[in-house]
Formats: sequence, structure tokens, C-alpha cells
Amino acid sequence: MNVVITGAGGFLGNQIARELSKRRALRFSPGTSKFINSLTLIDKTFGPAAKTGFAPFVSFAETDVGEGDSLRSLIRPDTSAVFHLAAMVSGDGEKNFDGCMQTNLDGTRALLEACRAIGPQLRLVFASSLAVFGGRNMPAVVSDDTKLLPQTTYGVTKAIGELLINDYSRRGFIDGRAARLPTIFIRPGHPNAAASSFASSLFREPLAGAQCRLPVLRSQAVPLLGYRRVVDNLITLMECDSAELGDDRVVTLPSTRYLVTDMIASLNRVADRKNIRLGPILDQPDKSIIKIVEGWPVGTEASRAKALGLKADDSVEQVIEDYCADFLTL
Amino acid sequence: MNVVITGAGGFLGNQIARELSKRRALRFSPGTSKFINSLTLIDKTFGPAAKTGFAPFVSFAETDVGEGDSLRSLIRPDTSAVFHLAAMVSGDGEKNFDGCMQTNLDGTRALLEACRAIGPQLRLVFASSLAVFGGRNMPAVVSDDTKLLPQTTYGVTKAIGELLINDYSRRGFIDGRAARLPTIFIRPGHPNAAASSFASSLFREPLAGAQCRLPVLRSQAVPLLGYRRVVDNLITLMECDSAELGDDRVVTLPSTRYLVTDMIASLNRVADRKNIRLGPILDQPDKSIIKIVEGWPVGTEASRAKALGLKADDSVEQVIEDYCADFLTL
Repeated sequence: MNVVITGAGGFLGNQIARELSKRRALRFSPGTSKFINSLTLIDKTFGPAAKTGFAPFVSFAETDVGEGDSLRSLIRPDTSAVFHLAAMVSGDGEKNFDGCMQTNLDGTRALLEACRAIGPQLRLVFASSLAVFGGRNMPAVVSDDTKLLPQTTYGVTKAIGELLINDYSRRGFIDGRAARLPTIFIRPGHPNAAASSFASSLFREPLAGAQCRLPVLRSQAVPLLGYRRVVDNLITLMECDSAELGDDRVVTLPSTRYLVTDMIASLNRVADRKNIRLGPILDQPDKSIIKIVEGWPVGTEASRAKALGLKADDSVEQVIEDYCADFLTL
Repeated sequence: MNVVITGAGGFLGNQIARELSKRRALRFSPGTSKFINSLTLIDKTFGPAAKTGFAPFVSFAETDVGEGDSLRSLIRPDTSAVFHLAAMVSGDGEKNFDGCMQTNLDGTRALLEACRAIGPQLRLVFASSLAVFGGRNMPAVVSDDTKLLPQTTYGVTKAIGELLINDYSRRGFIDGRAARLPTIFIRPGHPNAAASSFASSLFREPLAGAQCRLPVLRSQAVPLLGYRRVVDNLITLMECDSAELGDDRVVTLPSTRYLVTDMIASLNRVADRKNIRLGPILDQPDKSIIKIVEGWPVGTEASRAKALGLKADDSVEQVIEDYCADFLTL
């Protein structure tokens, strides 16, 4: 079978591609494995690092999902699984409403139509976000029963994507699933336009000996999920039996609630053990980022996801250790 | 100012047009009235009755909102209020996914873009529906805090419309509002493709001396709102101060929960008083309609709507009396 990943030039999409390259199969039912003959990676552009280290069965397509037209040829008839991660992020979406609608809404619709043309057995996993929640009466800990009330255009397009995944699946056009991602850490590279960027910078910059400007208060709570675990969870969600999802194909991923001060304490402990000299963390509260982050849920109740085999991290320290092993020596 | 009504060839849109023709003004702030210079009625087609009895300041535009292009010229710069009711109904939407997406989603997006071109002071009221609720864990009585989990394509497009209204308003593109309509009765004319059609047929056919085939059980509970009250409520929602709506422009309208058997008892009492010989009600349970209707909420908790001045009916009997006065002698 062919497997497609959109947003594969981004961190998480690229990590999924690397994990699937290792596994070379997906288990669509217990005890059976479906071999991955080819892996199609789609993104607007790929940096050199995002293309490095892949075997020849992996191909790269530079195309804008928001344009839509090219998707019909990229979602070939032998495609059995699509991971849809391509999206404009929250900060950019607030600056560019029309672009966010085009990439995240028109792009998702075009992708769903291309998948529908293949048939009902095609499985699709859509990366949604806790940004679908917010506003009036939002509980601090959200669950699969919490009302959708996004407070960013990004969150609106993710909520619409969830609704469409459910309807395409209910009607038997595709076999879709969606996962609401909490704050993912530690992303390598550079800060991006997401307001949650600090949750990676907080570890990444000090570990590199650089300084980190912390835009939120140390008392801020954050629902965290490590990058290895989210990759595993998205693959497990792809593999699970759709009957287990019932009439709601959308699951809130497990996460663990940490205070920023606890995240920093964990970082210090790992650095001590590994004899790493950390760069300084400078408290520079930014009112606009504080306001956005304070509007987010601080935790997730994820019993449905856990019943499907999806997991939270063992500890923040484990994720820091993983990051050091995967990225720090590069 | 100009006022626009989409779906104005349909029952509710046409009733709003008639009510505004009488009032000839909207109160956008307490104590002040804004005169209606012109009223633009839009629908795919208008039957002869839908065009009858209007003054010359009312104009009719036959256009498909799903086509979109014509909306830019119809939403003129002097437009200050838009009632958006045009939609493919639930039954038709289940038969025609692509048409439902085009009319209800593409049409709403085109309308919102046309309104955005006018400016942030333009007020828009979008007719949503309790069909945005359903599925796993839906409470029998829904509220403004209930999760969106529609089980029809119609409901999905209404939920997406709500999300877009909120985002266009949050960003200051327009001043939008949305109302979730419960089961509206008594609609004159003929049964339509909505699964809720029985809630009007139940009264309309017997009052006309015709027989009514009842597809649901008499023990079924239904959240009802009379047609005069829904027209008043949509106009009140248009007139209310947006600050009262906060970060959620969507309100669930008040309704009253009745059992079908109570609705029939009320009909019999009115018929006795008015000496009307009713046609028979034949119990012909239809499994597919029962299944759809059983998936709906049976009541609404509408404290936010009530705080805005929106109201439920005084009684079913009052709505039957209104219907007799408005439509039975025609």
C-alpha cells in the first residue's frame, strides 16, 4: 500500500515518516500487518534536513494542499492511509485569515474529496488541536464531551475539520479519525508563530547553551505530550478498529499537566545528570501571549483515547532525555 | 437601511419579511429605531404566494446562494441587517451531500464574504438548528454548553456556520449572531423532507379535514417553538446588543418540551372550542424516522437566550389558535 503524509516537511509529519520508514507496515487488524510499498510525503516546501535519510520508497511532493488540484493525482488508488498534518499554525492564522481558511479549510476539503474518490476503506488521521476549545465556560480540564468554542481562526478550521472527518466517515466516504493534540514538546529547530512555542524553547534553547526568553509566568500550567509519544499515538489511532470510535471519530489525546516551574526543575535535573551547562531562562512576560495561553485548557481527560491504547508520557525528564538522544548531538 | 433575508421564499424567511414589512424598523439600540428603506428577499425560487402582499419597497432576487457570485451585488453598501435562512433541509441533505455542502457551506461562506465587504457594523442573524447536537453522550436537554456532534450533513453545515459566525464576529468582520432553532410548528403548506415534518402535519392535516399519518410514537417528546415566536425571537436577536453575547454569538432558542400525545390533546381541545371537525391521525410508525427523531434532544435549556429577551410559547393551544387565524381561512 501507499501511505500519504501531508505537512511532512514539518516536525511531527517528518517524525511520523521516519517512524513508518522503520516499521514499514501498519497493523489494520490484530495480528495482521499491511506492508508499506511506498510513502508519499507532501508539503509546500521541504528543507534539506526534512528530505535527508529516507530510503528510495519515500517520495516527496512539493505542493500547497490549499490549491487542492494536485491532491487527486497524489492520493493514488493504492493509498490506504493518509496522515493529514498540513496546516497554517495559530499565530500565522490570526495574521492571515484568508490564507488560514484556504490552507486549513479548503485544503482539508480538497484532501477529503481526493480520499473519497479512493473509497471507504481509506483510513485518514487528521491532526486537530486543543485550540478547538476556549471561551465562555470552558472547563480547565477538557474532555471528549467539551463544547467546541475556538478563539482563533486556526482553532475554527480545526473544529471544522473534525466535523467533516466525522461526516465523511458517518456517510462511509472514508474511514476517518482525528486526534486533538495538546502542547507538543520538545520541537527542535527554531521558535515558530504558535503561542505554545515557549513550551519547546524552554528546553531547547537552554540545552543548546542559548538563552530563553520566557513569555509566560512560571505558575502557568500546560498540558504536555512528548513528540515521540504523539507520533506513536497518531499511528495507533490509524491502526485501531473504527468500531471502537463509535459515532465520534475525534479523540482528545492524553497529556500530562505540568507547571512551567516544574518543567524547569525537570530540565535542571536532566542537565545535572548529563553534565550539560544550560543557557539562562529570562522571565520576560508578554501580555498578549499570556492572554492566549491563559485561554487554553490546562489538562485533558482522555479516557476514550486511553481505552484505544493511546498514552501520555512517563515523565518530562524522559522526553528531555529522548530529545538529547535524538537531536542534541546533531 | 436595506435589510436582506435569504431563504425568503421559505416559510420562516417569508414570515420574517412580512413582520418587518409591518414594523418597518429595527431597534439597534434601546430607544432608537432604524428605518427600513428597502427589503431584499433572496431565494432560489419564489412561489406566487411568497411574493403576494408586499409593498414596493420589497424586492425579490431569485438566486442560488450556493452559486455565491450574485451575493456581492445583492448585499449593497446600505445593508445593515441580514437574516440568513437559506439552506437545504436535513432530509435532502442526507440524499445529496455535495448539494448540501454547496448550498449550506459554500453559500454561507459566500454570504459572509459579501457581508464582510460591507463592514463590521453589518448585523447578521444565522438560523442554525438543534441538529448540531447528537450522538455519543448527548444529554436529553441541550444547552449553550453542549458539545457539537451533528449526525446529519445538514447539522454539520449548521455547526460550521456557527463556528464561522463566531470567528467573523470575533475578528470584527461583521456583527454576527446565530440562533439554534428547535422544532418549529405549525408550518403551513405541505410536508417537506425534514424528519421533523410530522410536528406540523400532526396539526395541519387534521385541521384541514385531511388524515395525518403519524410516523413516530405518541410517547415521543419534542422541543417545540411556534412560528410567530421564532420570528419575534430572530428579530430580537438581531436587535440585541452584541456585548450581551460575549465570546459566543450562538444561542439555543427557548422551546417547550411536549409529548406527541399532549400535542394531540391540545389539538382536540382547540378543535372542540372552534367546532372544527378534525381529520384522523393514523399511527404508522416509520422506523427510519423514529431512529432520527430519537437521536434528537427533547428539550432546551435556554437561560442565555431568555436573558436576551427571547421567549418560548405560552402554550401549544395558542400556536394552534394563531395558525387557525393566520392560515386556516386562506
